[in-house]
Amino acid sequence: MLSFELQAACPETGARAGILHTAHGDVETPVFMPVGTQATVKSLLPRDLVNDLDAKIILGNTYHLYLRPGHETIHKLGGLHRFMNWPRAILTDSGGFQVFSLSGLRKITEAGVEFQSHLNGDRHMFTPESTIDVQLALGSDIMMVLDECLEYPASHEAARISTARTVRWAEAAYAQYRRHGDDGRRACFPIVQGSMYADLRRSCVDQLRELNADGYAIGGLSVGEPRALSLEMAEITAPLLPADRPRYVMGVGMPGELLEYVARGVDMMDCVLPSRNARNGYLFTSFGRVAIKQSQYKDDPGPVDEACQCYTCRNFSRAYLRHLFLAGEISFCTLATLHNLRRYLDIMREIRQAILLGKFPALLKAARASAADQPQ
Amino acid sequence: MLSFELQAACPETGARAGILHTAHGDVETPVFMPVGTQATVKSLLPRDLVNDLDAKIILGNTYHLYLRPGHETIHKLGGLHRFMNWPRAILTDSGGFQVFSLSGLRKITEAGVEFQSHLNGDRHMFTPESTIDVQLALGSDIMMVLDECLEYPASHEAARISTARTVRWAEAAYAQYRRHGDDGRRACFPIVQGSMYADLRRSCVDQLRELNADGYAIGGLSVGEPRALSLEMAEITAPLLPADRPRYVMGVGMPGELLEYVARGVDMMDCVLPSRNARNGYLFTSFGRVAIKQSQYKDDPGPVDEACQCYTCRNFSRAYLRHLFLAGEISFCTLATLHNLRRYLDIMREIRQAILLGKFPALLKAARASAADQPQ
Repeated sequence: MLSFELQAACPETGARAGILHTAHGDVETPVFMPVGTQATVKSLLPRDLVNDLDAKIILGNTYHLYLRPGHETIHKLGGLHRFMNWPRAILTDSGGFQVFSLSGLRKITEAGVEFQSHLNGDRHMFTPESTIDVQLALGSDIMMVLDECLEYPASHEAARISTARTVRWAEAAYAQYRRHGDDGRRACFPIVQGSMYADLRRSCVDQLRELNADGYAIGGLSVGEPRALSLEMAEITAPLLPADRPRYVMGVGMPGELLEYVARGVDMMDCVLPSRNARNGYLFTSFGRVAIKQSQYKDDPGPVDEACQCYTCRNFSRAYLRHLFLAGEISFCTLATLHNLRRYLDIMREIRQAILLGKFPALLKAARASAADQPQ
Repeated sequence: MLSFELQAACPETGARAGILHTAHGDVETPVFMPVGTQATVKSLLPRDLVNDLDAKIILGNTYHLYLRPGHETIHKLGGLHRFMNWPRAILTDSGGFQVFSLSGLRKITEAGVEFQSHLNGDRHMFTPESTIDVQLALGSDIMMVLDECLEYPASHEAARISTARTVRWAEAAYAQYRRHGDDGRRACFPIVQGSMYADLRRSCVDQLRELNADGYAIGGLSVGEPRALSLEMAEITAPLLPADRPRYVMGVGMPGELLEYVARGVDMMDCVLPSRNARNGYLFTSFGRVAIKQSQYKDDPGPVDEACQCYTCRNFSRAYLRHLFLAGEISFCTLATLHNLRRYLDIMREIRQAILLGKFPALLKAARASAADQPQ
């Protein structure tokens, strides 16, 4: 398995700093992972991710890559790293979330989930074993087990039945991983589910810990529930997970929330928010979110954020970015994505530094005080 | 005026090599100028143009920039170079071509052309004087005079009347330029029109030479006429222009045509073909055009062109590019545009080198022989 080195733990909060040693380089945690759904982080090139962002790990989506171009094609071409020319670490999800959010008719059985491609309606089946095989073909550094993603809200009974199935799937997936993928060069994380029920989250953790897994993910958040509830679930779940393994909360969050998840003991996060907001003209800054289309920026010669050192802020004005956005220029997406992802990664680097220096509680306090003043 | 240094002339053809000295750096000719219509070369960043392509000059479109964000806004923000963060030379057209190709209802009078914005239908007026003023506000290194672009085909009588008006407009524009813009840091080119009639082209040149202009453009080509006819018009027109001034054919051409225009005495060209073809999945190579969506590239691990040294060819397979194209990813546009523009600029650098070494006739002969064998 990949190894996780815990470097520091905040005595007053759950915050931790560490290093994930992967076959494709070290990843300092806490870390935010840019999302590269279809074997590309939308609108960026690999050199941008390395030179501008110094991203050490990105995400790939198993569901998307399985359907197009196909994991066998990628495998034949040398695996996902080589296919997309990404030399650093890759984490892939199991495809479960997309099956539940994107695909058409789907049928869940004990064996797995049958679904229709959102591209052409073709029928496919994902099983706990097959999604491990797909991720092995892709050559991921960190794989996820297949899980069932419940909608919010779900009744306790529905959540109980679903979570039990997720646990059985995790056991089946992990058995497959131990048989075929556990060669010391990769890792596999089961996913804690349980909807918004603390008792289900707890019993799910108890059962998944039996797997002695390389790391653990907390799933089923950001599915429509209030943000305070997502944080509460992370707060209940994270401390129950083994302290010497990385903890990954899937699909969060807004810039101001990164610190809150870290405070609850989370080491890894990913989200499409920074890149999707970028393409829609919303830029995250140290003083809140900027909607670049607003006419107040028409003649504004200043950068998006004076405090930001990204290529976009060092070279272009708000007026220029607004022009590109209104003109529908592709280069707007690139410049805005560079900025937003830099913001996320800078926040994480600042958080990590604070943890290492024993200053995390002060950072958290200051951020909470300023959050009360600013729009997100 | 900007100065043009003629370095070599091919004794067997019309080909010339030179240097355009501009206030924003030297431009080696013959040169292909990437098109940056809306203050950005579509899908690229300025650093790509400098680092990957070493482009020394790009185009901006007066019509587009006048309508959005407006030349006054750009002027207020320090001019077009600063606005788009482009440190090298910029040539702007007069907007005439777009008025005739993009805008709605238009009315031509001796004073100029009244037209409707293609963005919102607002009515505007371009005069020979106002388009100089707009380009001065933008801060172009090389400006163009307003001309009337005839459709193809046009009757000799219609072309005669139109060309005479274009000459009068050029005189009015040039007078405005001499009054307000001729400060030794920029240049202004009149445009030879005359449709496909040699006599009209000749008389147009005779009259425009009276202006003793900084350089001359040949316009009214690539408007739907057969490609052989475009070349014929360039062949008739270019040698009539003063040898010590740069000659610019607007809106051409396909990769195989660059050499043909140079052979006829042309120093500067621009065209949306490389960037537009890129976005549509057509890649220009040393062995013809590649339609990347074709299924033959599905598993192809090779680069688009083994002979190309661009970032795209050095790092990505045809299979990956095909995947990005089919997935509609923005990064495809960037990678494909990088490649196609690199191809155009490499062709021009090869041509220039051949002229300087006295080997242009051999290059021309070889290119014509191989063109007979390959699809374009």
